[in-house]
Amino acid sequence: MISYAQAANIVSFPPPQRTLMGPGPSDIHPRVIKALGQPVIGHLDPACVAMMDELKALLRYAFQTENALTFAVSGPGSVGMETCFVNLVEPGDKVVVCRNGVFGGRMIENVQRAGGTAVVVEDAWGEPVDPQKLEEALKQHPDAKLVAFVHAETSTGVQSDAAALAALARAHGCLTIADTVTSLGGTPVLLDAWGIDASYSGSQKCLSCTPGLSPVSFSDRAVARIKARKSKVQSWFMDLNLVLEYWGGATKRTYHHTAPVNSLYALHEALVMLAEEGLENAWARHRNNHLALKAGLEAMGLKFLVREEARLPQLNAVHVPEGVADAEVRTRLLTEYNLEIGAGLGPLAGKVWRFGLMGYSSRPENVMLCLAALESVLAGSGYALTAGAAAAAARDAYAAQGTVAA
Amino acid sequence: MISYAQAANIVSFPPPQRTLMGPGPSDIHPRVIKALGQPVIGHLDPACVAMMDELKALLRYAFQTENALTFAVSGPGSVGMETCFVNLVEPGDKVVVCRNGVFGGRMIENVQRAGGTAVVVEDAWGEPVDPQKLEEALKQHPDAKLVAFVHAETSTGVQSDAAALAALARAHGCLTIADTVTSLGGTPVLLDAWGIDASYSGSQKCLSCTPGLSPVSFSDRAVARIKARKSKVQSWFMDLNLVLEYWGGATKRTYHHTAPVNSLYALHEALVMLAEEGLENAWARHRNNHLALKAGLEAMGLKFLVREEARLPQLNAVHVPEGVADAEVRTRLLTEYNLEIGAGLGPLAGKVWRFGLMGYSSRPENVMLCLAALESVLAGSGYALTAGAAAAAARDAYAAQGTVAA
Repeated sequence: MISYAQAANIVSFPPPQRTLMGPGPSDIHPRVIKALGQPVIGHLDPACVAMMDELKALLRYAFQTENALTFAVSGPGSVGMETCFVNLVEPGDKVVVCRNGVFGGRMIENVQRAGGTAVVVEDAWGEPVDPQKLEEALKQHPDAKLVAFVHAETSTGVQSDAAALAALARAHGCLTIADTVTSLGGTPVLLDAWGIDASYSGSQKCLSCTPGLSPVSFSDRAVARIKARKSKVQSWFMDLNLVLEYWGGATKRTYHHTAPVNSLYALHEALVMLAEEGLENAWARHRNNHLALKAGLEAMGLKFLVREEARLPQLNAVHVPEGVADAEVRTRLLTEYNLEIGAGLGPLAGKVWRFGLMGYSSRPENVMLCLAALESVLAGSGYALTAGAAAAAARDAYAAQGTVAA
Repeated sequence: MISYAQAANIVSFPPPQRTLMGPGPSDIHPRVIKALGQPVIGHLDPACVAMMDELKALLRYAFQTENALTFAVSGPGSVGMETCFVNLVEPGDKVVVCRNGVFGGRMIENVQRAGGTAVVVEDAWGEPVDPQKLEEALKQHPDAKLVAFVHAETSTGVQSDAAALAALARAHGCLTIADTVTSLGGTPVLLDAWGIDASYSGSQKCLSCTPGLSPVSFSDRAVARIKARKSKVQSWFMDLNLVLEYWGGATKRTYHHTAPVNSLYALHEALVMLAEEGLENAWARHRNNHLALKAGLEAMGLKFLVREEARLPQLNAVHVPEGVADAEVRTRLLTEYNLEIGAGLGPLAGKVWRFGLMGYSSRPENVMLCLAALESVLAGSGYALTAGAAAAAARDAYAAQGTVAA
């Protein structure tokens, strides 16, 4: 027996109570936490099957789709992404991937590992995908079978014109994969109206559920292509031909894997809450809190990375002011205010902060806390600002909306 | 906008309160449920990183290993299985897979989808893997690189001699992959003493945590082989070269995916509880409750599928008696007693019942409830038995152990 020494001093873990204003996870509503902690039942229990059927209907509402194959992958968003690519890419397939941040780069990895060839349409980090560049690529590569892009780039806070990109793809005979990890529930995602064929999201962003699930949806055209594959899907776990018999329609459920039952309870409750609020109201709430945060950040002299018309309200990336130590500010916000904000990724590491206003985190009290804490920390690091200006600007923004700041 | 009609009648989901005595998930202890519902924190929060480091130490204790690369995959056991295969199998590799149930069959699928060739050593469902057959296969295939087997077959309740199988593999220059999904925490799993190179388990069996995580461990020899691969791992998400930089040692953590933070809290607590109880005590508890259940089932005239010396105490498969309707009995147990037991899988569908006594489900009160409920339902379906005999036999078994039945 290996002694217990290495584990001996380990006791129950009490997490700190943070306010989460980074790029996810976001704060979880008490109702969702309560749902998470309900008694576990078997994943083949008729009650569980009924709950999973409701979850599919709720996800169709969130994605604005009639797609039959709409469910939650039992893994984080990266598994949802990989599920889309390994099912829709066959060895030798040419895929046009639009890259304007971290997640476009990860799509290229996915295409290549599935045996496909990626044609990359590049845009600068912080810029939306340029439809003209996509069109040129499609003209140059008439044999492309698939177009993949990120609707809402979590690494920069930029939003691309998904409707325009999907229309171009369709005009050139391609199916589309859209990453909606950061957009779903926070800003319009209209799969059917836009003609998106496959999309994956995450549970822990604007849905404000516990991290670990990836809502996905596939059009009938996508399902037809998957069923007509010449080669087996390289992943057993992600093979939708097998998953269909588990999450699928009216037929008897075939055992595939043990679903993460408690997490599904939580997602169900988060989606019931989204349906109660209504998508349009949720989008408006994200927009309104963004406008107040923006007014406050700008009153402190901070500059956004992304130009106004392409900004995501739920993910606000601003430049770290010159002379201010990025990591020190974030550490002080975390240790002194229990406030998490996001750092920059890749080429933006050390250069931007990312303020998330996602799901249950998108509340006036979070906006006001964040502005006050940031002002205090920045003032302490010698950055010149007018005390109270940020809060006043945010309050004005809320007043203009007819909202009272917390 | 697609109307809300389809989701309109969906309200919060209140799961029934079941007693889980199937093949998993098992009942979850209130302490673990409480941990699950703690406030979410960021996955890159220093507090989260420290918790994940503790989790690695706790898992090393559970697996009885010093392996540095020991962590929880952010997905169910099937993803843990696939992580082992896609990292250790390269295209063209020959892998000896021992199949004596459902999960050996799934291993073959994994080998083939990773581009390997599976040499299958077959044993009957309900029989342990025969080491002699493995040795013959290894002699016939001196170019084999890997041996894979299921330590504890969840589909039958049989246990194979992992030490003997791993020793043979090593003698023939092969690495080993062992499925310990159902054994970890319930019956001895001694990775280092046995010389296992890679193993995956599940959170929802004898660890009694919420389903959705897969504890895994890899020996230094396995890691060396993964680092020396000629080809990229086909899965981006499961590529251990990338995961290492996230769950790995002392170096700075690189963002890979958003860990399922709440589920990790729950696993941490479940493992703290296992360490408090002590592995040997947990194994003895599983054994003692098995002996009482066995005495009761046999007093009802039920016959085990697996011969005594190869039985898993935590998973008891018995033949459905002739003339008794399998599904009807299970449905009545569920609807009248809120008691879940498992059905047979594959060729055993309709032919066996599987009674799980895993983790927190392995308690005298569950044994006594199960025997009483089963006796009542069987008597109602015309099966001949002596009322009260099962409970008396179980009580005698507990008395012989010095335990008082609930």
